[in-house]
Amino acid sequence: MTRFMLTIEYDGRPFVGLQAQDNGLSVQKVVEDAIFAFSHERLRITASGRTDKGVHARGQVIHFDLETKMTPYKILAAMNALMRPYPVSVKECKVIPDDLSARFDATDRHYTYRIINRLAPLAIDLGLAWHVPHHLDELAMQDAAQVLIGYHDFTTFRATQCQGKSPMKTLDRLDVERIGDEVHVHASSRSFLHHQVRSMVGSLKLVGEGKWTKADLKASLEACDRNALGYNAPPDGLYFMRVDYPEAKLKTPAS
Amino acid sequence: MTRFMLTIEYDGRPFVGLQAQDNGLSVQKVVEDAIFAFSHERLRITASGRTDKGVHARGQVIHFDLETKMTPYKILAAMNALMRPYPVSVKECKVIPDDLSARFDATDRHYTYRIINRLAPLAIDLGLAWHVPHHLDELAMQDAAQVLIGYHDFTTFRATQCQGKSPMKTLDRLDVERIGDEVHVHASSRSFLHHQVRSMVGSLKLVGEGKWTKADLKASLEACDRNALGYNAPPDGLYFMRVDYPEAKLKTPAS
Repeated sequence: MTRFMLTIEYDGRPFVGLQAQDNGLSVQKVVEDAIFAFSHERLRITASGRTDKGVHARGQVIHFDLETKMTPYKILAAMNALMRPYPVSVKECKVIPDDLSARFDATDRHYTYRIINRLAPLAIDLGLAWHVPHHLDELAMQDAAQVLIGYHDFTTFRATQCQGKSPMKTLDRLDVERIGDEVHVHASSRSFLHHQVRSMVGSLKLVGEGKWTKADLKASLEACDRNALGYNAPPDGLYFMRVDYPEAKLKTPAS
Repeated sequence: MTRFMLTIEYDGRPFVGLQAQDNGLSVQKVVEDAIFAFSHERLRITASGRTDKGVHARGQVIHFDLETKMTPYKILAAMNALMRPYPVSVKECKVIPDDLSARFDATDRHYTYRIINRLAPLAIDLGLAWHVPHHLDELAMQDAAQVLIGYHDFTTFRATQCQGKSPMKTLDRLDVERIGDEVHVHASSRSFLHHQVRSMVGSLKLVGEGKWTKADLKASLEACDRNALGYNAPPDGLYFMRVDYPEAKLKTPAS
């Protein structure tokens, strides 16, 4: 048995989400069906994190254990050929130690949320960004965002259906930058609560529009109450960008 | 009668191209139907340039003459509401002098061609970029591109069905830059021949892969023969970005 770790990209639009569900096609099903097609092994993948319906990934990480002997390059090529009908792509494939988990050993998860801030509706980027027509003050957003950094009870920014054991999380980074008519929000943490990034971005949008101050955002966090949330941003603009693992743990005994 | 100039964006994938054709839906038809829907005027738009099936625009410019009295803002809002089922969007709308043409008065047209240069197939950017798996040397491409700058007979880089009167054109800019795993080619000219940008990009790709030298590109240009073309890049990566008009001519008598 060999454990493989894959970095995958997907367009979230046609999927019910990362995780297999009864109500439609999931990224997990496409990936597991491709593995079955080349190996005849019916297995479950483990992902570093779930993504919701409509959320995209540029660097989701998964692992699985395979009995079939194959090189990482052959697995990458086979899966990309088999998954061609779907917007899912394997960017990297490598062998990892049997005791390393894509889910439990992740030290940092990185998301980017993409807002297109202009009057005109989206044409090319429809479903790939959040359209916000009113001008956003990205400097005010960046300044306010810093009140969320650190160890907090993020109950306000957590979906009511969130299954996490605790609302206590440490947010490492929340940065807002403008690139022309786009406003990007970069968020990093060891782990996030369900809807946390979208809830933080939705609230920052209110700050950018001048409807909320930095103090309002702080009060919303301190309320520890989902009803104190400003706004939950749509999935369209959310991209799961990268996952970090401890370098030392990634090394296989053979490497 | 008032002449309006519009800047529009569109995703080229669902269209047969900019120009109305019998074999499918065109951008022109979507735009003219929207104008008819709010004004009951059945008119023809004039575009600064045609784009082929699958080619995108971030800044196509069109003009049309309207009898109905409406402000530019109301036209923009009405058209964006009416075109919502299609990936076409009006970014700007203004009144221009009656004798200014989006087509004949353009002084410079700007295109950007987007290549994604990585092994993995495209997922999120499928149809929105050209996937080139072999590593491209963007510095060699940039260096070679300069042999095409200036006034030349561009017959080699012209589609056989091109209706332009002369193959003589002045290319003002052809710059290649790498941004991570993307390679962008920026081309500017008063006007381009049919398929010219795609033909230049396809040939530059051969240079980037090391299959062609700068001298090969120069010989291809000097052959003045379509059969000497290296490669015609697919429409997926081509974006019509911007059109320039003389500032003085844009001013209406009233403004």
